[in-house]
Amino acid sequence: MKINHRINYPSSKKIYVKGKIHNIQVGMRMITLSDTVSVENGQYITVKNKPVIVYDTSGDYSDKDVTIDITTGLRRLRDQWIEQRADTEKLHIFSSDYCNKRLSDSNLDTIRFPSVNLPKKAKEGNFITQMYYAKQGIITPEMEYVAIRENIQNEELGIQTHITPEFVRDEIAAGRAVLPANINHPEAEPMIIGTNFLVKINTNIGNSALSSGIDEEVEKAVWSCKWGGDTLMDLSTGENIHETREWIIRNTPVPVGTVPLYQTLEKANGKISGLTWEIYRDTLIEQCEQGVDYFTIHAGLLKAHLPLVKGRTTGIVSRGGSIIANWMTQHDEENLFYTHFEEICHILSKYDVAVSLGDGLRPGSINDANDAAQFAELSVLGELTKIAWKHNVQVLIEGPGHVPMQKIKANMDEQVEHCHGAPFYTLGPLTTDIAPGYDHITSAIGAAQIAWYGTAMICYVTPKEHLGLPDKEDVRTGVIAYKIAAHAADLAKGHPGAQVRDNALSKARFDFRWKDQFNLSLDPEKALEYYKTGRLEEESDHCTMCGPHFCAMKLTKEMNDCAKINVQKNK
Amino acid sequence: MKINHRINYPSSKKIYVKGKIHNIQVGMRMITLSDTVSVENGQYITVKNKPVIVYDTSGDYSDKDVTIDITTGLRRLRDQWIEQRADTEKLHIFSSDYCNKRLSDSNLDTIRFPSVNLPKKAKEGNFITQMYYAKQGIITPEMEYVAIRENIQNEELGIQTHITPEFVRDEIAAGRAVLPANINHPEAEPMIIGTNFLVKINTNIGNSALSSGIDEEVEKAVWSCKWGGDTLMDLSTGENIHETREWIIRNTPVPVGTVPLYQTLEKANGKISGLTWEIYRDTLIEQCEQGVDYFTIHAGLLKAHLPLVKGRTTGIVSRGGSIIANWMTQHDEENLFYTHFEEICHILSKYDVAVSLGDGLRPGSINDANDAAQFAELSVLGELTKIAWKHNVQVLIEGPGHVPMQKIKANMDEQVEHCHGAPFYTLGPLTTDIAPGYDHITSAIGAAQIAWYGTAMICYVTPKEHLGLPDKEDVRTGVIAYKIAAHAADLAKGHPGAQVRDNALSKARFDFRWKDQFNLSLDPEKALEYYKTGRLEEESDHCTMCGPHFCAMKLTKEMNDCAKINVQKNK
Repeated sequence: MKINHRINYPSSKKIYVKGKIHNIQVGMRMITLSDTVSVENGQYITVKNKPVIVYDTSGDYSDKDVTIDITTGLRRLRDQWIEQRADTEKLHIFSSDYCNKRLSDSNLDTIRFPSVNLPKKAKEGNFITQMYYAKQGIITPEMEYVAIRENIQNEELGIQTHITPEFVRDEIAAGRAVLPANINHPEAEPMIIGTNFLVKINTNIGNSALSSGIDEEVEKAVWSCKWGGDTLMDLSTGENIHETREWIIRNTPVPVGTVPLYQTLEKANGKISGLTWEIYRDTLIEQCEQGVDYFTIHAGLLKAHLPLVKGRTTGIVSRGGSIIANWMTQHDEENLFYTHFEEICHILSKYDVAVSLGDGLRPGSINDANDAAQFAELSVLGELTKIAWKHNVQVLIEGPGHVPMQKIKANMDEQVEHCHGAPFYTLGPLTTDIAPGYDHITSAIGAAQIAWYGTAMICYVTPKEHLGLPDKEDVRTGVIAYKIAAHAADLAKGHPGAQVRDNALSKARFDFRWKDQFNLSLDPEKALEYYKTGRLEEESDHCTMCGPHFCAMKLTKEMNDCAKINVQKNK
Repeated sequence: MKINHRINYPSSKKIYVKGKIHNIQVGMRMITLSDTVSVENGQYITVKNKPVIVYDTSGDYSDKDVTIDITTGLRRLRDQWIEQRADTEKLHIFSSDYCNKRLSDSNLDTIRFPSVNLPKKAKEGNFITQMYYAKQGIITPEMEYVAIRENIQNEELGIQTHITPEFVRDEIAAGRAVLPANINHPEAEPMIIGTNFLVKINTNIGNSALSSGIDEEVEKAVWSCKWGGDTLMDLSTGENIHETREWIIRNTPVPVGTVPLYQTLEKANGKISGLTWEIYRDTLIEQCEQGVDYFTIHAGLLKAHLPLVKGRTTGIVSRGGSIIANWMTQHDEENLFYTHFEEICHILSKYDVAVSLGDGLRPGSINDANDAAQFAELSVLGELTKIAWKHNVQVLIEGPGHVPMQKIKANMDEQVEHCHGAPFYTLGPLTTDIAPGYDHITSAIGAAQIAWYGTAMICYVTPKEHLGLPDKEDVRTGVIAYKIAAHAADLAKGHPGAQVRDNALSKARFDFRWKDQFNLSLDPEKALEYYKTGRLEEESDHCTMCGPHFCAMKLTKEMNDCAKINVQKNK
């Protein structure tokens, strides 16, 4: 584990904004800009440019004053907040049999995270979810944290916005927003997912039976946070899932999600017939106590839906969906996640794990978009939302998939109609099937649109989608494509302050402040790299695109100077 | 010139579809698919998959039976059609002084295209544009060619569509579609740009004073056609523009556009003050006689608009726009392209060169989108459209630029309102400013939307936009991003037959016919390359993404088999 996980953003420093209600410090990234210099009457005129503060998902990795050691994990930011609420207790032993078995297996010593973190759980009779607190009118430190985080740029600029701690509380209470915050993942910085907040992006990592190891997965997790991933799903399906996940959670400053079914199936030796509620239940508890913040659960795909899949071009393309569909077919029984859903919610509520209701029947091709199967499941997700909320469990609704542009809006409309305002969380959608190798683009097109229509979080797609597992560069490309889609949607929704960064970057561009332009961009390293290609000087008043005679921006400035001279002549 | 320009698409062959009205042969690409194989009761069942025919921009480069030699240029496909009309004459000398001067300069012998192509021109008193013929009710071979080209997949499938030669004629006559077809570029295969046809993409190449040479530009032109570029703009601003352009035109099977102002400025030694109508006029004629199919002319930017630019974040970002704005400011005169517009149209009409009315005031930042300057110019473009049509000159209207999603539709609406149905041709639009290095994505998001709303052609943006000149890989990436946007729009518009390729690819995906999936994709080479990464076998029933236990598609098939067995059991 010799990887240097430190994150450096150019001309940037970590700043912390203090809470007003709670004793909290919200990390932000401040980008310092150089001055605008112009010449007027032979004199240099210098005008300062205000620094730009941007939303920061990189946690302590970008704070040079904090020691980073992945063998001890990140600082436990939320431990004190949770303790102060005095409604949870630290257990003396893990509640999952499987977890205890893994802990006592000395063969795993070499790959195990060095320290054991005994789990917390709600005290008997206590409700401890952010949704519960919100309903009670309590503004938690987590809620104030996200209010500051979503809002700082506006306060700085004196822009009035609706994003107050009280607004955050209200949105969570109504189920319109989710603040994923497992009490066993105190390392994560609070963030919020809801249509009235900045659009978030999820990234997926995870090894399969055929691929990568623990080191690589931790590195990818940090890498995802560096580029702007807001949440991270660990979709591992290979060996040592339990240990890999522990490393990831202890070192990830954003909420972590999983699909517990995957590990359950591994425990059943990959045999769908061997899946039982007991193994699944133990897996849920195992992961709740490790600190997973949200679970994708495919509880809405019912036996009655299976005949609707028959005419499809691409059948079932959700892994979880296909597993549970096979299980139902083999056992001729109803979906066990559906029949055990109350019990599932009961477990999740003890740790404040959110449920992300999986869309097992999402369309896998343009031809299957918006079909009866897809919408039948969506309507069941709406039913389940009400049940989860009854248990104060926060809910996300997962959405497609492959959808042509003209059918995207209907997805949002149906979701709003059936799911009572719970945040929508979509995979893309991909707007055509014909570009494997470029599905980060086919899907960024759809993601930008559906996020504009109201989707709260978009799950990234990398260039390797349909072809293989993403490597680090693919993760970076996928994250940036989705940051673009999310930001384009924030602009389109008129999210207050969203345009500040665009304005600053464009002003830098017009001023030929090249470094500022790069530093303000989503990927400063790539911008600089491209700029340097085929160029001799570092800074100049033109570039290789147009050469010195044809630079429009330079010419605009010259024209302005000329116009000024004309005006003076005519005086 | 030892570059191998042959284009090979996997499992593809060139086919030719004959005309019914004219003796023409329309080139297409036919992709052959393998059979679907399944096991039923222990027996292999094989089902044939029909080949898929796709629109092909690669011309003779992908026909293995045609000799390619870039020193002689492509076959002159349209020569006979033009001659048969007997309304043009071959000149004995070029009409441009500059052209004749270049030809007689023996220093240029080493870089000059080997043979001299004497130009054709309309005979005195004759009208020879496709628009003129269309208005007369004449269906030219060019019109029938594009009707077949847009339509073949549908005929093959027995889908009824409106795209008949008569419909093409009608759209051109009304100005709703443009068929760029300079009589001096007979090498180009006819294609059509209009809202009722497949969305087209333009690519830009061209050296600047600081960069590449002739070889590289020809190579990029062929490369652009390989990946699907429908038209090609040569935006060269460096040395030897005339000779570079000759090489490009003689070897490019798609329409070629330019901005004649660039070369005019070179002739004035880069001094805007030295621009005159006489130099510009000679440049227009020079390029008309070389075979440029459409000119971007910034005739709509008027003196009265300049004050509207003052408050902008990024001023004028169009190169042509900034040059003419400077010229107007320096001379305190009206735009010379506006004042000479009738004369310009008269010249263009003699060669059937289309005019693409440039948007010199397109917004260069989110903050400047849809401002008074932009829309004031657009309304003048509408005026100019009527003048061009009076001369039977075909018209495209250029559009932005940087526009946030919520303001895109207004661009289309304003264009429709002011420009009498002339096809809209936009650069992106880019939906945010904050992602230099990824502007092929920021803009593909906007391009897909505006094309869905009705834009007929979208001009590609490469990853190097704002940073430097694109290399070959950037061109490829930019073209594919725009093919995606265009195709997503074709699907959304319900263009007949557009979904055939998606359906075939998705079926191949579901069947695990990996090679067919790649061969049907926009970039088969990239798909194969990604697939091979980290994989041992060439074909298998699962991939590295999910491993053998977690493949949804495999599981769906197993479920179907299981369901069949259940059904048989219950019989």
